[in-house]
Amino acid sequence: MLSFVNDYCENAHEAILQRLIQTNREKKPGYGQDSYCAAAQEKIRAACACPGADVRFLVGGTQTNATVIDAVLRRYEGVIAAVSGHIAGHEAGAVEFTGHKVITLPQHEGKLSAADLRAYMEAFRAESSWDHMVQPGMAYISHPTEYGTLYTRAELEALASACRAYGLKLFLDGARLGYGLVSDGTDLTLPDIARCCDVFYIGGTKVGALCGEAVVFPHGAPAMFLTTVKQHGALLAKGWLLGLQFDTLFTDGLYLRISRNAIDTANRIRGFLRQRGLPLWIDTPTNQIFVTLENSQLARLQEQVQLGIWEPVDQTHTAVRLVTSWATGMDEVEQLGQLLLAL
Amino acid sequence: MLSFVNDYCENAHEAILQRLIQTNREKKPGYGQDSYCAAAQEKIRAACACPGADVRFLVGGTQTNATVIDAVLRRYEGVIAAVSGHIAGHEAGAVEFTGHKVITLPQHEGKLSAADLRAYMEAFRAESSWDHMVQPGMAYISHPTEYGTLYTRAELEALASACRAYGLKLFLDGARLGYGLVSDGTDLTLPDIARCCDVFYIGGTKVGALCGEAVVFPHGAPAMFLTTVKQHGALLAKGWLLGLQFDTLFTDGLYLRISRNAIDTANRIRGFLRQRGLPLWIDTPTNQIFVTLENSQLARLQEQVQLGIWEPVDQTHTAVRLVTSWATGMDEVEQLGQLLLAL
Amino acid sequence: MLSFVNDYCENAHEAILQRLIQTNREKKPGYGQDSYCAAAQEKIRAACACPGADVRFLVGGTQTNATVIDAVLRRYEGVIAAVSGHIAGHEAGAVEFTGHKVITLPQHEGKLSAADLRAYMEAFRAESSWDHMVQPGMAYISHPTEYGTLYTRAELEALASACRAYGLKLFLDGARLGYGLVSDGTDLTLPDIARCCDVFYIGGTKVGALCGEAVVFPHGAPAMFLTTVKQHGALLAKGWLLGLQFDTLFTDGLYLRISRNAIDTANRIRGFLRQRGLPLWIDTPTNQIFVTLENSQLARLQEQVQLGIWEPVDQTHTAVRLVTSWATGMDEVEQLGQLLLAL
Amino acid sequence: MLSFVNDYCENAHEAILQRLIQTNREKKPGYGQDSYCAAAQEKIRAACACPGADVRFLVGGTQTNATVIDAVLRRYEGVIAAVSGHIAGHEAGAVEFTGHKVITLPQHEGKLSAADLRAYMEAFRAESSWDHMVQPGMAYISHPTEYGTLYTRAELEALASACRAYGLKLFLDGARLGYGLVSDGTDLTLPDIARCCDVFYIGGTKVGALCGEAVVFPHGAPAMFLTTVKQHGALLAKGWLLGLQFDTLFTDGLYLRISRNAIDTANRIRGFLRQRGLPLWIDTPTNQIFVTLENSQLARLQEQVQLGIWEPVDQTHTAVRLVTSWATGMDEVEQLGQLLLAL
Repeated sequence: MLSFVNDYCENAHEAILQRLIQTNREKKPGYGQDSYCAAAQEKIRAACACPGADVRFLVGGTQTNATVIDAVLRRYEGVIAAVSGHIAGHEAGAVEFTGHKVITLPQHEGKLSAADLRAYMEAFRAESSWDHMVQPGMAYISHPTEYGTLYTRAELEALASACRAYGLKLFLDGARLGYGLVSDGTDLTLPDIARCCDVFYIGGTKVGALCGEAVVFPHGAPAMFLTTVKQHGALLAKGWLLGLQFDTLFTDGLYLRISRNAIDTANRIRGFLRQRGLPLWIDTPTNQIFVTLENSQLARLQEQVQLGIWEPVDQTHTAVRLVTSWATGMDEVEQLGQLLLAL
Repeated sequence: MLSFVNDYCENAHEAILQRLIQTNREKKPGYGQDSYCAAAQEKIRAACACPGADVRFLVGGTQTNATVIDAVLRRYEGVIAAVSGHIAGHEAGAVEFTGHKVITLPQHEGKLSAADLRAYMEAFRAESSWDHMVQPGMAYISHPTEYGTLYTRAELEALASACRAYGLKLFLDGARLGYGLVSDGTDLTLPDIARCCDVFYIGGTKVGALCGEAVVFPHGAPAMFLTTVKQHGALLAKGWLLGLQFDTLFTDGLYLRISRNAIDTANRIRGFLRQRGLPLWIDTPTNQIFVTLENSQLARLQEQVQLGIWEPVDQTHTAVRLVTSWATGMDEVEQLGQLLLAL
Repeated sequence: MLSFVNDYCENAHEAILQRLIQTNREKKPGYGQDSYCAAAQEKIRAACACPGADVRFLVGGTQTNATVIDAVLRRYEGVIAAVSGHIAGHEAGAVEFTGHKVITLPQHEGKLSAADLRAYMEAFRAESSWDHMVQPGMAYISHPTEYGTLYTRAELEALASACRAYGLKLFLDGARLGYGLVSDGTDLTLPDIARCCDVFYIGGTKVGALCGEAVVFPHGAPAMFLTTVKQHGALLAKGWLLGLQFDTLFTDGLYLRISRNAIDTANRIRGFLRQRGLPLWIDTPTNQIFVTLENSQLARLQEQVQLGIWEPVDQTHTAVRLVTSWATGMDEVEQLGQLLLAL
Repeated sequence: MLSFVNDYCENAHEAILQRLIQTNREKKPGYGQDSYCAAAQEKIRAACACPGADVRFLVGGTQTNATVIDAVLRRYEGVIAAVSGHIAGHEAGAVEFTGHKVITLPQHEGKLSAADLRAYMEAFRAESSWDHMVQPGMAYISHPTEYGTLYTRAELEALASACRAYGLKLFLDGARLGYGLVSDGTDLTLPDIARCCDVFYIGGTKVGALCGEAVVFPHGAPAMFLTTVKQHGALLAKGWLLGLQFDTLFTDGLYLRISRNAIDTANRIRGFLRQRGLPLWIDTPTNQIFVTLENSQLARLQEQVQLGIWEPVDQTHTAVRLVTSWATGMDEVEQLGQLLLAL
């Protein structure tokens, strides 16, 4: 059975496991105060061209979103997101659990637009009862988005500019950031992101690590952030487990190099789809491929391939998601290709 | 200066103030354990034709919404509301503050439709990652709505039926309930509401009381509800202040009788608007009147009348809200009428 | 049946009810934006000799405690209180409900000592894992305390000094403040309190009002405090109901004048107890009187007097609380006195 | 430099790392729905002699405490703990963050006594204002405790019996459970714990795993527990990372076997202390050793040994903590021993 269900189905890049073995019996201080975290922080600052950044490591994506948003917002503030944003729909209300409203705006192929953001803020300010409303304090975006699409540099700069104009912090969820950074045609770099955002994270879980997300605060972390992380139940005792992984991923460009495999394999799949004439449900440049299948095609494909059912398109068609990753083998892709061509 | 800004601009019906004076030096037990609360509860149960109902008194509307929703929902559940619902936009995130997401569906003249509710629940159940999402636990509606519109009995029954089908509690916010119950053409009664809802409240603040909302649980209140109210900072020490007001309002039909004044005065205003040919922005049967004015008309009217700016309609027109209440004098309405006719 | 159960058993001072009637049909803006609130704020600033103070009105004590503490503290901070503090035991966890720990220190006749506070802060700072702990952000005291005792000016200054030394805000819960300010022998004035505290409140519910507490921020309120109040469900629509009461209470010294009645009547009761030789459980100068009774005496007294059972002293004795108020009649006290003398 | 600072200073038992490598490229379903979790759950159920237990895996201790307590308690309930309990002091208020009060009772060498628990509940029930108080819903204990001490079977049964009598759930924090189960003289087994507790966890982080705690609900988990875990930001995408570790630890008794090493090395250290005549600050049977040193001795020892400063004993003495683990080498202990003998 082939599987293209998700990008968190394998353990970790072998280099990480090797280092876990090498360092196994070293005694290391807990809670991220070790030399591996320090080394990883330094390498991430360099990769971001942001020497003053504060870098912290958390375990998973929802945890990171909820902790960062709660740490950055004031108590009476909410966070603005596209209606398709991960925090808006698929995190079990983890943000609301900490008391903050997720204010949703329309999505444009998964993206939040600066124009919508400005229009919302203008309308908010024009409201006579604005002080009876949740005060917008932050804009949340994902890059790549939940639809696998990417912001251009100009789009991110427009969002950053809108955020500054209205006193909002800009937070970029980079659970799949590596795949976005190496996609064909993107003009957005890690230093661009560090320049535009108030906080963002570099995803490890979906890009080669066992677990872990590296949170970057280009202008410094909120006061007492470690205590806030502990308060959220998000402080890992063996913090070096995260530091050591990111140190490995950010040594000699491993993070971007392995990310590229996901794009190469995804591109090959897109080639098969074109060749077979199967229509893309949405055209994306990253490792998530959305294709519209006839339900009978889908049924046949599912006999040999695990994939994601995205949503019904009409009575007889379904949008389907195929995901590649750092670990996807080109041989698996070729097998999938033959199945697609034979549909 | 005339004022039609809102329905909470006067203190209270005189009968209430008289009873406050009469009972002033009586020593009464605190926290709602007094005989006035007991009497009011009994009268409300009778008015609802629901002898088994548990009736509690809270001070204000947002407080009631946040406390009731948190008391009824499980920790991981959210509440579904029309996007125009008061809890969704104008309560400063009081519901999210207690950890519960407000899930918004489209509004139809301010109303939530049973069809939308069923469609949402079907889609939710079809989601492969439904257990990574906020679990819908309740539907919230306002009657009258924030747009002054009313549910028909058939509409409320359809909502109640949908709620039962999907395991949702149905909560009706009746901040202006009196005005809804006596509007022309409504077929929805207090016993209907008690039959259809799992919890609702009868608004006092906007209908003759100094403050106070009577929460009715037709099938009984959640366990330890008094403690929950205290935990929310919502337990009034002098609970009889609420009981005594509702006892007065529910003696000899005072609540509905004074509500009718708001409808009579609103109808007279609607008559003036028709006579002058000013278009309604939305046609409502209750005490909130929405009219579209040219901005120059609005400017002239505002010189002599306080009213609510609802929203811009286009470059040269604005939707305006006029509100009557139990206390509005027909003389004020006649003065307003002359101003409208002269616009 | 006589009753000395509590100081919130009557409605309100007559002057307040008269003004409610006089102003009944005036149309007033909502949410505390009216002229009565403005006038009350001005008079309270004057009474506090603190012209720069920000004064806000809330409905009840637990609500005020929870809202103020949450508004002032950062998310990761807790509040220090004597173990007997009202927030620590008798508010159903309303402070924890908003996410803040109540850190308890020993009580000394109901009071928090500056020495204990300093010792706690020194130990906290010496902790190697201090950043894994709740960060103390505020000290909470009650004046009068839950035991009816009073801080001296020197004690309050010592607490204020300790708070400043350790970066804590000082919050004084004045639910019964009037009774403390006019007690025999106290040297602590309202201006002293305004000078020493970062925030405090002047209780209305227990001192002549229907409801209401006046929160004073001598150095200004936290940003967006109105929104925070709304978020907590604590914003009263008819805010003038609170403003008008405090305006009345702070006109011509009414607040202190009626407070003195509680002390005079309490002193008379203490005289009867001395005359009869009944031992005080704790000697207090305010309107709460604690006396130790034999259980047989208690049983006899309860046949004709409602009072508070405080706690068992031993197998055969019980500590009992008698409370007077602004409304207690000297005739009631004389009747109680005869019963006490005959025990 | 020797280190006896803590028991989470090494990565993981080699068998775990080997299996991570062996299974590295297998594609596994996320969120704990994989076969490794299933196998581990089965083995843990067997080890607990509790075939009906629901077993779940979380990442860390504070996260587990906060998530489990919030999932089990009703909204208005609090948790009772010894004042020395980890949740009471060293988790940054993570429990209060979710809205639940931690009610503290005295500690007896780190333990909560059934007598204190019963006395508290009796006093609570006798309180006239019990419904204005946090409702106790759970008792929390640690085994081993924060002081390294152990409950006897009789003590745990007494606590379980008290909990049942007063409607409390019993929760045992087993962050160091392995070390407790194999200590000399203990009569408490895993099946005993499963029989007595409503929920407990078997610590992995401190006993051979990279991370992970296995939560056991002998009578079944709360409804929608996975959603609650997600809502708390505690759901690990690669859930098999936890399952695979516990499967390894519970295969062929590895968990208890490696735990025993911590006891053997700790016993050897206790032998050196006795030999040298250094007084224990508290006598414990587990892997935490508390010894009182003269400050000059401490200074000398710290030149060559990393250890924990527990608390000052007097002006010239300090209580010090030495911790062994599954990974401590007997050679390290011998080196430490020579240093101790030479102090």
